[in-house]
Amino acid sequence: MEPLISFELSIEFKERFQQALDERDGGFITTCLESVNPADISALLYEFDSEECKYVLNLLPKEIGARILEDLEGNIREGFIQAFGAAELASFIELMDSDDGTDILYEMSVRDRNEVIRKIEDEEKAANLMELLEYDEDVAGGLMAKELIKANLNWNILQTIEEIRKQAENVGKIYSVYVVDDQENLLGKVAVKNLILAKSNAKVADIFDEKLISVDTSTSKDEVVDAMQKYDLEAIPVVNARGKLVGRITIDDIVDVIRETAEEERQLMTGVSADVEEDDSVWKISRSRLPWLIIGMAGGLAGAQFMGFFKEEIIIVPALAFFIPLITASGGNVGIQSSAIVVQSLANPNVFASSIVKRLLKVFFVAIVNGAILSLMVFGSVILFMKEEPLAATVAIALFSVVLLASFMGTITPLLLNRLGVNPALASGPFITTTNDLLGLAVYFSTAHLLYNL
Amino acid sequence: MEPLISFELSIEFKERFQQALDERDGGFITTCLESVNPADISALLYEFDSEECKYVLNLLPKEIGARILEDLEGNIREGFIQAFGAAELASFIELMDSDDGTDILYEMSVRDRNEVIRKIEDEEKAANLMELLEYDEDVAGGLMAKELIKANLNWNILQTIEEIRKQAENVGKIYSVYVVDDQENLLGKVAVKNLILAKSNAKVADIFDEKLISVDTSTSKDEVVDAMQKYDLEAIPVVNARGKLVGRITIDDIVDVIRETAEEERQLMTGVSADVEEDDSVWKISRSRLPWLIIGMAGGLAGAQFMGFFKEEIIIVPALAFFIPLITASGGNVGIQSSAIVVQSLANPNVFASSIVKRLLKVFFVAIVNGAILSLMVFGSVILFMKEEPLAATVAIALFSVVLLASFMGTITPLLLNRLGVNPALASGPFITTTNDLLGLAVYFSTAHLLYNL
Repeated sequence: MEPLISFELSIEFKERFQQALDERDGGFITTCLESVNPADISALLYEFDSEECKYVLNLLPKEIGARILEDLEGNIREGFIQAFGAAELASFIELMDSDDGTDILYEMSVRDRNEVIRKIEDEEKAANLMELLEYDEDVAGGLMAKELIKANLNWNILQTIEEIRKQAENVGKIYSVYVVDDQENLLGKVAVKNLILAKSNAKVADIFDEKLISVDTSTSKDEVVDAMQKYDLEAIPVVNARGKLVGRITIDDIVDVIRETAEEERQLMTGVSADVEEDDSVWKISRSRLPWLIIGMAGGLAGAQFMGFFKEEIIIVPALAFFIPLITASGGNVGIQSSAIVVQSLANPNVFASSIVKRLLKVFFVAIVNGAILSLMVFGSVILFMKEEPLAATVAIALFSVVLLASFMGTITPLLLNRLGVNPALASGPFITTTNDLLGLAVYFSTAHLLYNL
Repeated sequence: MEPLISFELSIEFKERFQQALDERDGGFITTCLESVNPADISALLYEFDSEECKYVLNLLPKEIGARILEDLEGNIREGFIQAFGAAELASFIELMDSDDGTDILYEMSVRDRNEVIRKIEDEEKAANLMELLEYDEDVAGGLMAKELIKANLNWNILQTIEEIRKQAENVGKIYSVYVVDDQENLLGKVAVKNLILAKSNAKVADIFDEKLISVDTSTSKDEVVDAMQKYDLEAIPVVNARGKLVGRITIDDIVDVIRETAEEERQLMTGVSADVEEDDSVWKISRSRLPWLIIGMAGGLAGAQFMGFFKEEIIIVPALAFFIPLITASGGNVGIQSSAIVVQSLANPNVFASSIVKRLLKVFFVAIVNGAILSLMVFGSVILFMKEEPLAATVAIALFSVVLLASFMGTITPLLLNRLGVNPALASGPFITTTNDLLGLAVYFSTAHLLYNL
């Protein structure tokens, strides 16, 4: 038995491994990777360059190499794909499930892709890959694998087991055997547990379960994720528009989708565009952050231009300037809170989604409560510390209006983005903070202008 | 076969259902819920009150009721638990896997909990629940279920299948049969696929797979999630400190953990404390948001106090005030970007994590590049539009310093929080934005003070 962390990668090990790589000491490398899980080898390979990784991969059994290639991500896999020839890639892809093979082909140019497919010897595998490449990456068809076990309604258990035996090499994990009729229409499933418990002369038709949740090739990725989570499924069959069984999506791929979605959302919310990791180059990290910073800066310059109109007010009442950060920060905080709750409810849609009017009404009431409480606190503080009533009134009225306005913007923006097909999480990002800053300033100085000229 | 959305809940259906509830029309309710998936019934029940839900649950088969109770979340489950007596709850819990039963017991007071456990008739189930309640909710022991299939090393396949038959009712899904010796030490597993394919007189000892990843009862929740994702597992066995098999964690629970973690992080980042949904009451939503808004407001007031020291500068150069939002917003944006990348790498730890010095050096270089670019752009813009060199220099120098400082703060804060055992995502939230605002103001006005008094 293998405990959880069997393969602790120390700096010493990394250095020893690097030395073995430099000396092309194949014996050492094969010995020390012999009983290591492919997923751990993938993690190790991130530390070395493409040529070195290629050398390691060629030392290992082809089967292990295919597992490693499946696991790798981003830059390092790109490097690999370039380091290998079409024939070598084809031989790895031949050992993968069709969905993992398709993922690799997606990353290549159409020309290279076709060359690899031509080198694949297994005709069926090649046909499967070509079929899967037709689907969009964001729908069930683009997530599914062709590998699955199916049984005809009229077979008996022995025949079904014989089919499993034939397919056993190709299908990694069996959760259920899908039941089809002679026209390949999906009718139901037999859980492996029941297969084990059934008498060997029993007919599939007698023991199969008609209650089966399936998706269509065109079902969106998000719906597949929701369904598998809601119904606690470890695999879901995929049918085409005519109800014929064409593939299967397994939970391990869904777990990856959930993690990627969460990461994407975080990137949108924090203004770090593109897939950047902490160990990317300084220049790559800078570039990924600059666009958002420039948007923020442009907003700041626009704000400065705007405040230029109120120069007189500031000269007469310099204390007006003191509360600029309070106004902009509160607008930003309220806006982000409001957008967050909308983004959350868009991500987990309720069965009876409230109408937009009802939503806005509630947001409006929450804003009135919070705005009133904050304004009173600020009013009291300004009176207490600065003893200037008109200033206290200006700040309090402006703050109340900003809370109302920012709540409205924070609610409406993600709904609009969603309607436009853009990820609503963008509405919790720097773009909105900038807009809210400008709105806040406009409200604040307009209020000041009005009150001081009364 | 059941397509994905078989049970579309329309407003009309909801109203018709409410009418049936008002009239206590059990016939209508049972008929229309007969073939509906329990997960869909749970979603429907969120629309009605505890008493009505209890009425529905009592109409349905006990088994279905148990599934529904497992699925429900938050307030509505609390309401349910209060609506049922101890004996009724015990009869539902008896039909659940031990981990789901434990989740419900966790939500009750110790007194109520013990009363429910006393009412459970199945001695073994009661013992299992009491064992699971001992574990912390954040470790493998608190996630696992006691239900699993195990086989002794010396059995043959027929004996193993007999064991599955005996256990079949209690164990929902079988992925692997775990292999133990006479002392219950976990030795390996047999995949169900191999069980089907093996000859019935074969010995477990001959066909079992020693390569098996397991966790300890005390392994942290995060490590379990990472391991199951990394190794694409649908179930992981749990052993105690002495290597004996004590439970199993399945992927459906892990999927829930991943989603909850992402949601928690979003809450920390957007300053919406406590578990609040869009359809909670106005007062509950207000209350959950106020603490963060008050922190922001207090920061704003502190900023106002601070700026009071620079009243003279503002009167002489009122344009200084114009750039306050630019400075605070840029500091906020840079801080959040920096913290986000640290939070991300803390969530997906690399095998060779960079040292803190190396990290800070890189952050420093990125900040210098971005700070320089932004400062030059601002300097140019101010010269162009306002034609005031000292002002342009003040804003540019302050912006550069703020970018540097905010990057440093954004990097160090999540690392510190993590060291202190606090969720580092808090560092991307309103608390840090407030701190950065204050820092930015301090830098800006100090620079102005220095430059204008030269």
